[in-house]
Amino acid sequence: MKRDFVNIGTRLPRIDGIIKATGEARYGADLSLPGMLSGKILRSPHPHARILGIDTRRAAQLPGVRAVVTGKDTTGFKGGGIGSNGDEPYLAMEKVRFIGDDVAAVAAIDEEIAEEALDLIQVEYEMLPTVDDPVAAMGPESPLLHDHAPRNISLQTDLAYGDVDEAFKKCDYVREDRFETAPIRHAFLEPHAALASWDQSGKLSFWGSKQSPYFTYRNMAKAFGIALNRVRVVQPYIGGGFGGKNEMFGVDFCAALLSRRTGKPVKIVVSQEEVLYAFRQRHPTVIDIKTGLKKDGTLMALEADIVADGGAYLSIGAMSLYLMCAFLCVPYRLPNMRTRGRRVYTNTQPSCAMRGHGVPQSRFAAEVQLDLAAKEMGLDPMDVRLKNALKPGETTPNGFKITSCGLEESLVKGKQTMARWIKERPRQTDGKIKRGIGVGCYGFVVGPRLAGHNTAAAVVKVHEDGGVSLMTGSTDCGQGSDTVMCQIAAEVLGVRMEDIQYNMVDSDVTPVDPGTYGSRVTFITGNAVRVAAEDVRDQLAQVAAGALEANPKDIVFRDRQVFVAGSQQRGMPFSRLVKTAQYSGIGKTLIGRGYWSPKGIDVVDFKTGRGNISATYSFGTQIAEVELDTTSGRIRVTRMAALHDGGQPLNTMAVEGQLEGALIAAVGHTLSEEIIRQDGQTMNPSFLEYKLPTTLDVCDVEIVHTDVYDDQGPFGAKECGEGIQVAVVPAIVNALYDATGVSFKRIPVTPDRVLEALGKKTRGLE
Amino acid sequence: MKRDFVNIGTRLPRIDGIIKATGEARYGADLSLPGMLSGKILRSPHPHARILGIDTRRAAQLPGVRAVVTGKDTTGFKGGGIGSNGDEPYLAMEKVRFIGDDVAAVAAIDEEIAEEALDLIQVEYEMLPTVDDPVAAMGPESPLLHDHAPRNISLQTDLAYGDVDEAFKKCDYVREDRFETAPIRHAFLEPHAALASWDQSGKLSFWGSKQSPYFTYRNMAKAFGIALNRVRVVQPYIGGGFGGKNEMFGVDFCAALLSRRTGKPVKIVVSQEEVLYAFRQRHPTVIDIKTGLKKDGTLMALEADIVADGGAYLSIGAMSLYLMCAFLCVPYRLPNMRTRGRRVYTNTQPSCAMRGHGVPQSRFAAEVQLDLAAKEMGLDPMDVRLKNALKPGETTPNGFKITSCGLEESLVKGKQTMARWIKERPRQTDGKIKRGIGVGCYGFVVGPRLAGHNTAAAVVKVHEDGGVSLMTGSTDCGQGSDTVMCQIAAEVLGVRMEDIQYNMVDSDVTPVDPGTYGSRVTFITGNAVRVAAEDVRDQLAQVAAGALEANPKDIVFRDRQVFVAGSQQRGMPFSRLVKTAQYSGIGKTLIGRGYWSPKGIDVVDFKTGRGNISATYSFGTQIAEVELDTTSGRIRVTRMAALHDGGQPLNTMAVEGQLEGALIAAVGHTLSEEIIRQDGQTMNPSFLEYKLPTTLDVCDVEIVHTDVYDDQGPFGAKECGEGIQVAVVPAIVNALYDATGVSFKRIPVTPDRVLEALGKKTRGLE
Repeated sequence: MKRDFVNIGTRLPRIDGIIKATGEARYGADLSLPGMLSGKILRSPHPHARILGIDTRRAAQLPGVRAVVTGKDTTGFKGGGIGSNGDEPYLAMEKVRFIGDDVAAVAAIDEEIAEEALDLIQVEYEMLPTVDDPVAAMGPESPLLHDHAPRNISLQTDLAYGDVDEAFKKCDYVREDRFETAPIRHAFLEPHAALASWDQSGKLSFWGSKQSPYFTYRNMAKAFGIALNRVRVVQPYIGGGFGGKNEMFGVDFCAALLSRRTGKPVKIVVSQEEVLYAFRQRHPTVIDIKTGLKKDGTLMALEADIVADGGAYLSIGAMSLYLMCAFLCVPYRLPNMRTRGRRVYTNTQPSCAMRGHGVPQSRFAAEVQLDLAAKEMGLDPMDVRLKNALKPGETTPNGFKITSCGLEESLVKGKQTMARWIKERPRQTDGKIKRGIGVGCYGFVVGPRLAGHNTAAAVVKVHEDGGVSLMTGSTDCGQGSDTVMCQIAAEVLGVRMEDIQYNMVDSDVTPVDPGTYGSRVTFITGNAVRVAAEDVRDQLAQVAAGALEANPKDIVFRDRQVFVAGSQQRGMPFSRLVKTAQYSGIGKTLIGRGYWSPKGIDVVDFKTGRGNISATYSFGTQIAEVELDTTSGRIRVTRMAALHDGGQPLNTMAVEGQLEGALIAAVGHTLSEEIIRQDGQTMNPSFLEYKLPTTLDVCDVEIVHTDVYDDQGPFGAKECGEGIQVAVVPAIVNALYDATGVSFKRIPVTPDRVLEALGKKTRGLE
Repeated sequence: MKRDFVNIGTRLPRIDGIIKATGEARYGADLSLPGMLSGKILRSPHPHARILGIDTRRAAQLPGVRAVVTGKDTTGFKGGGIGSNGDEPYLAMEKVRFIGDDVAAVAAIDEEIAEEALDLIQVEYEMLPTVDDPVAAMGPESPLLHDHAPRNISLQTDLAYGDVDEAFKKCDYVREDRFETAPIRHAFLEPHAALASWDQSGKLSFWGSKQSPYFTYRNMAKAFGIALNRVRVVQPYIGGGFGGKNEMFGVDFCAALLSRRTGKPVKIVVSQEEVLYAFRQRHPTVIDIKTGLKKDGTLMALEADIVADGGAYLSIGAMSLYLMCAFLCVPYRLPNMRTRGRRVYTNTQPSCAMRGHGVPQSRFAAEVQLDLAAKEMGLDPMDVRLKNALKPGETTPNGFKITSCGLEESLVKGKQTMARWIKERPRQTDGKIKRGIGVGCYGFVVGPRLAGHNTAAAVVKVHEDGGVSLMTGSTDCGQGSDTVMCQIAAEVLGVRMEDIQYNMVDSDVTPVDPGTYGSRVTFITGNAVRVAAEDVRDQLAQVAAGALEANPKDIVFRDRQVFVAGSQQRGMPFSRLVKTAQYSGIGKTLIGRGYWSPKGIDVVDFKTGRGNISATYSFGTQIAEVELDTTSGRIRVTRMAALHDGGQPLNTMAVEGQLEGALIAAVGHTLSEEIIRQDGQTMNPSFLEYKLPTTLDVCDVEIVHTDVYDDQGPFGAKECGEGIQVAVVPAIVNALYDATGVSFKRIPVTPDRVLEALGKKTRGLE
């Protein structure tokens, strides 16, 4: 059911564009309160050690220091886990488990004194043996990080559907490979920042760089044993999250603890270096995978053993591991599947959610293996994908219900694109430069259900001049969702974008919301906004119907006008209707509210994984063209195409921005990004050494939207921020195979590895 | 219909008590934003002058000065009036009309430079003749302040009911007197403060010391021609208002204008001296009044001619003048009444609303005259009052509908109090000290209807641990209403006070509300809170009914427990019910909303005044005992009793605080407070010279609540903040007559005036 939209499906600039461009938008680090102190965190210099004692006396005596806190000052509540008491103390208790672990914190009158005080804290450590390889960590002789986790296995997920062994026997073609992915960073440009202020009435106000502020709201209440309405979490502008700013961290806890201790506001802004060695990463993985097909390309069976390096703590790894395993069932029809996923503790930075959340790793393996299989079988990889592509109405063996699905359309259009590119490809001039084109497909969640409710709510307040204020509990951490929320409200009320004013999260007043993850904001909060706006529109339609002598159902709201359907003359401006509603009779304050929760969704056990995790799924096909210099090993992605089913795009420009961002990020994942460690020490904790793609690495991108309108999505929309990233890695790696005939099974595919694979001497580190 | 309350009717400390006591509560002057500039206002040194030119060049060139603005930079929108474009430019255009009128404003990097820059602004004035006496101002030769107001009459109200002339003829006793009241101050301790910050997207954020922030929200939008949702008015804590912080002033406009000019936040905090000479005052009045009675004490007719000195501008004087006149019909049955009220422009500070809003002046005249009449007729003044007291169900000739009314009960109890006091009174030892007891009665509005809607709204958000956040658009400017709002929500939801968290006004998110005036907050916003809390309670009752297998109507919410009426075992904790509601099924975010508007209320034309201005009225009897030293002329109020019908008191301690505050303030009004001017210049613009009562002037106060439960009021409540003030002035003046036999018809009754009246030489100013 499509409509004739006014705001939806257009190219609209961001509502926060101007103040972000002028530098006025205030991020966590920009905030300041009278009497504010500066905080700093002392971090472990050892990857694994027992803390025998901490002497803070000299630090506390330094003039200007106001408080020093250690693990003894915490309440025992630990971070990590999904919404529950996890395994990660906000300040280390008896042990440190990676280089960067939070050990102590200082508040002082300025940053320099706080920094100086850190040096005066004397920690006596007893070194412990360390392990940084996840496979080795499961060995019987490996040192243990946590007593509760024998063989360092923090989580295990076992999925099994159909008769896998029997299915493999019937296959005409079976292949097995091992794939490996490196640890990489979220690489948001804004470092973590926390400002906390307790008042004497026992109320904590907190401003933090959080993509899911309500996680911190809950955990602050638990960590300090206070009621939720005694914690006020206010969201400043956020400079990127990508999954790395969901949780409450030691820095947040310490700001609050130090503020309570000192009776002053305390701000802690971590350095980019700290972010890069002491915070989160994407799970590195080792994936053994086996795929079986019939000779016509029908996918029969898949088996995988996934070892994910979780680093020192649990974080929200349960979801990561589940998604990594479950998305082996998507986007192809796969009747028989078995996977064992193990998340393993090692003495490194903890791994957590990151754009695509676990799926890029496992789909890299599956998509590359499928491509290799098709090619070896002499089949067109596109045709194999088309043959097996999930269609609307299908249910995967693990229970995912496919409703709207544009995968087939994306593949058909992708084939046309590939054909055109092959035609346009410059002729191979010499053997030095090799060119290739590759493909990858994906399916992704749209607002998965975690533990607890997955509802969103919105409140729409209409001002007496017809302007609108909108409140939700969702956070725009850079993806542009605030703008989309305003579009939805404007569309329902028939007003213009500039008539809507959006309010960022303030847990005292905005409705609770799970947060920004799993591509849920547009889909779920967007629907709540739609319902809230419809609620207030219905109130206004009643008044309009009275004034215009019509049925409320016939009242049309469009372009700041309200009229009776079919006779535009019988109407009035929206602003006049609002005044009439507010001032006639005894008057009325116009507030709309809306709740929304996805339909047809199950509570899924992350260990066994049966059930529908998401009300709908996004799909797409990604094509990449590469150029490989066989002399230097250097790879350039020369063009990319994203053929994407994100449902109806609400703001075409924003969707393009999201897709392009995901594409470029995935180029980094495939070709250059890697956290390099030596004895647990991060060797590249700076953006000089950690190789993010730069503007020079950006290629032409073609974006094609499939013609899909999701019935549950707000105005038909699904997601566009994450799914595509899943398909980019295999598309590039498959293109490299097309170019060289070499199958790269370990990312990033750096020049060294290229040269090594091509049989040349690597350059090494001179 | 009374109930067995838990929170209501108890003595509860204020929710903001601790942080106000510790000094953490942040008032306007405490606020700070990065890059903030300081603003200062240049004020007129002349009471009446034409501005021939303003040269701001030297000021603008002073290092550190960032902007200088004058009337030319305003948009033409003027302040004053009720909700509309008035007669008061935010910066003087062609004329100045009193000493203190806003002429220009400067923003600089600090306060000292801004102050210095003021001296460099050269204003060329042409002096104009001035008038500071309101009666003289109406003379044909008087200089005119505004072209639109011949004879300087800014407003006129003419009320006439019954046949006044005929009624006077039938009277057995008629007397005529002239009463005069002096200009006095609101005397809030927090001076006006304004902080404004425009961002480049065109949004204005404003923090100001405002008792009705939504007035400023509307006027800012009008003054700058922007939409209401582009103005964000945030309310800090307010250090008293008493009617003097309703309007948007030049200081507010200038902060915003200077911020827009400079692109920086600008804060202007006026000095207490500025507040005292350049801001608002209570209307001084000259009242000629005539009362006629039958010999049995039946009140037959009243006629009055009221001249109110409005000062230089309109302000919200229309309401003041109307109330001054209309409340001659209350609290006694008065079939024939005629009054002419004129509000007159003079070259002094503008007069506006102040606690009791116009009524203390006219009721001073009427109550003292009635007392004198009764005494001269040989009747007991209490009996005369009892005979004529309005009763429930009566309608006054001007259309006030009396619903609940405890006046008779208060008089009966007052008689007992008086009798006891007379018995307890120390014997007259020598002729030097004279003692007397006097009485006054009152009736007052409870949320009068101004132009536009009189609705209030509230939003109740329930957190998942059972805590509650409450939002209204009302402002607690010191009266304690935030605490009362929390009580109401707690009572409805059956939780404790500490479970409720209250949010102060932020026009982006809180519902629009007329503001804090006319004793409307408890009555109107309180009901909105009740309705909003009931809304969320009903949602929860549905869930509870399901879980407990009962009818939703039978679910009782009490003391953090929810159970089936009559069987307390069939229940669960409130917090568990909330979790159940939020997490079962697809989950639900719990938000309640409520609108409320008084019933049976009319839109009253302030010029002719017929109709019911208020849904209900408060009543009461005030008794005062005085001691007068005939040698020094010094008067001490030795004890007071307030017998008060404010409906059901919601927070007994807060009600007592309000009554005591009003009583003491009225002692100042009666005995010591007066703005002294010479040639338009305020001679006592400091709390050293302006004589507010101090703690040494506070006497014992007895407070008696009548047994009245108002059916519209939230849990039966009406008002307690203003009405009683009306009755205190006549009670003291009548006590002075009782002590001395002298009728004082001019307030304040200073020692000089006492000695003069007693025939002694005044002390004068040595």
